Amino acid sequence: MVEREVRVLLAGYGTVGRTLHRILEERAADLARDHHVRFRVVGIARRDRVAASETGFDFGSPNQLPWKSGTLFDLMGEVKGDVLVEATPTDLAKGQPGLGHARAALRENMPVVLANKGPLVVAYKELTERAEKAGVPLRFEATVAGCIPTFNAVRHAFAGNPVSRIEGILNGTTNFILTRMLEERREFEDALREAQSLGYAEANPTNDVDGLDAAAKIIILGNALLGLDLSMDKVETAGIRSVSRQAVEVAANRGFKVKLVAEVDRQGKARVGPRLVPRGSTLDVSGALNAVRFSTELAGPVTHIGPGAGGGPTAAAVLSDLLDVFHNGSRGGSGLRSLASTATKS
Amino acid sequence: MVEREVRVLLAGYGTVGRTLHRILEERAADLARDHHVRFRVVGIARRDRVAASETGFDFGSPNQLPWKSGTLFDLMGEVKGDVLVEATPTDLAKGQPGLGHARAALRENMPVVLANKGPLVVAYKELTERAEKAGVPLRFEATVAGCIPTFNAVRHAFAGNPVSRIEGILNGTTNFILTRMLEERREFEDALREAQSLGYAEANPTNDVDGLDAAAKIIILGNALLGLDLSMDKVETAGIRSVSRQAVEVAANRGFKVKLVAEVDRQGKARVGPRLVPRGSTLDVSGALNAVRFSTELAGPVTHIGPGAGGGPTAAAVLSDLLDVFHNGSRGGSGLRSLASTATKS
Repeated sequence: MVEREVRVLLAGYGTVGRTLHRILEERAADLARDHHVRFRVVGIARRDRVAASETGFDFGSPNQLPWKSGTLFDLMGEVKGDVLVEATPTDLAKGQPGLGHARAALRENMPVVLANKGPLVVAYKELTERAEKAGVPLRFEATVAGCIPTFNAVRHAFAGNPVSRIEGILNGTTNFILTRMLEERREFEDALREAQSLGYAEANPTNDVDGLDAAAKIIILGNALLGLDLSMDKVETAGIRSVSRQAVEVAANRGFKVKLVAEVDRQGKARVGPRLVPRGSTLDVSGALNAVRFSTELAGPVTHIGPGAGGGPTAAAVLSDLLDVFHNGSRGGSGLRSLASTATKS
Repeated sequence: MVEREVRVLLAGYGTVGRTLHRILEERAADLARDHHVRFRVVGIARRDRVAASETGFDFGSPNQLPWKSGTLFDLMGEVKGDVLVEATPTDLAKGQPGLGHARAALRENMPVVLANKGPLVVAYKELTERAEKAGVPLRFEATVAGCIPTFNAVRHAFAGNPVSRIEGILNGTTNFILTRMLEERREFEDALREAQSLGYAEANPTNDVDGLDAAAKIIILGNALLGLDLSMDKVETAGIRSVSRQAVEVAANRGFKVKLVAEVDRQGKARVGPRLVPRGSTLDVSGALNAVRFSTELAGPVTHIGPGAGGGPTAAAVLSDLLDVFHNGSRGGSGLRSLASTATKS
């Protein structure tokens, strides 16, 4: 039974945005039964085009949507949303356009769910303060390690059990490359080309192979879970371009794997770089997997392993955030309208 | 700042109960600052003795407590509690005395946090129905894999992303024995004696080595997360007594580890037994570690690894449940009194 209807504005309509749209439609009956909520995508902004519908869009070909010129800001004037899902491409330098989108939504006291790291890397403190002032939730489970429990897990499962240190294999592309260098005895450049041809690495691979993507994720983890105020310039960052096949093999012969490890501790020391990880340790994950290890005060290290990227895992993380905010209307603080007060029909 | 004071009744005062008591005291300032709550242990029941204090007990030697004859039922008549923490020894056959304790608390509309598997294995459905009827929370994060996120994680991080199958290394004792059989080339009986001398295995090891403890945990996972109605007789259970050193070595030479794997799927098929796990897979954890792998519909498998037993991890799980119930007074449904309505002073 649907007790609440939630009108979703989507900024960005690439793999994550489209996968989320499809999942919200395919799983509508289950979400109504298990969570008493129905999500309707009533507005989509994609680069310089927008599409709006008071009754919501069914999922289908993007080409069939009634696109017209405009930005998210135009869209927000045209159709009323209950939440903004921000899934535009990541810009680690300025955070745009996601940062402007998040600010605009929070100005209107609209909850924000981010799948985009950029705004958090550039302006974590500003955005969390804006959200607190507006009294609405700002969620970002999808920005680190897909739907592997990170932020939600720590808030709930480790409540009262402080995390002192976080380490992770947070970039699937470099982990794939390093795995192939070892298993197929390839040099870095060869393995990179393979990753590009398989779609694991972008044409311009710098964010991945130079460690910037992993640095962005460790910043978000440190700021959100350890109360830090990190930015890119405070993370000692090295990538894997200089890792040779020989180094990978020598390490393997001595019982180690070369991994791009991101780490941060409660004192604010944060770094990303190639490290030797003992074979068989919980950070020794292969292929495009991610691993996040939390050192907890009361229980020692707990490690979560799973897919860290891709449309399904990322959209699943966004969905868990949406349900955390809107499930049963019981969470998320003020600013959330109940179904009874929305203008649409169920 | 303490906004709520919570009066805790403890049933069982062994390692888990005492560790929890110590942690609640040692971390009182942090819990007040971060969670605005203060827990006071106002009553303790231990076998046929009880101790009660309107103002709460400081942590210290159990011998200094004002024990007198009585049971939890007597204690509940003597001192008012806001929550029962049940940590008496596990009885997988009848669930007692924990089951009677849980029933008594729920009859009085008192929230229950279980660290004891017995009541859930024997009467999961009855207890959850009683809790629902009473409108109070029943939590049991500590019963499976210590504070490795399982129930909380699935409720929050995998919301909207159904789990179809759960597999795990859920018994640290057998995993320790199997690890030593391989690494030290010991036979089962030798490795068992070592585990007993180190305190990893009990004098009567049957619950561990015959798979009963793992079966109990997979029952709780299946019932709570997959909506099943499992009991011990529905789980095909085998232990590791018949695993030879030779079998462990042959498997290793072929790239496998022998592990006691517990598994359950949404269709209700549940079993526990020695299985071959590929070396390097996420279930290939060594020593006394636990691993739980959730197969999720939208994101594939996600695995959590960490310490599955011991006072610290188990008490940490109980604490996370207590905070989930009482944090900010915002969760847990009806039946919870706010600080303002309690009779004690802050």
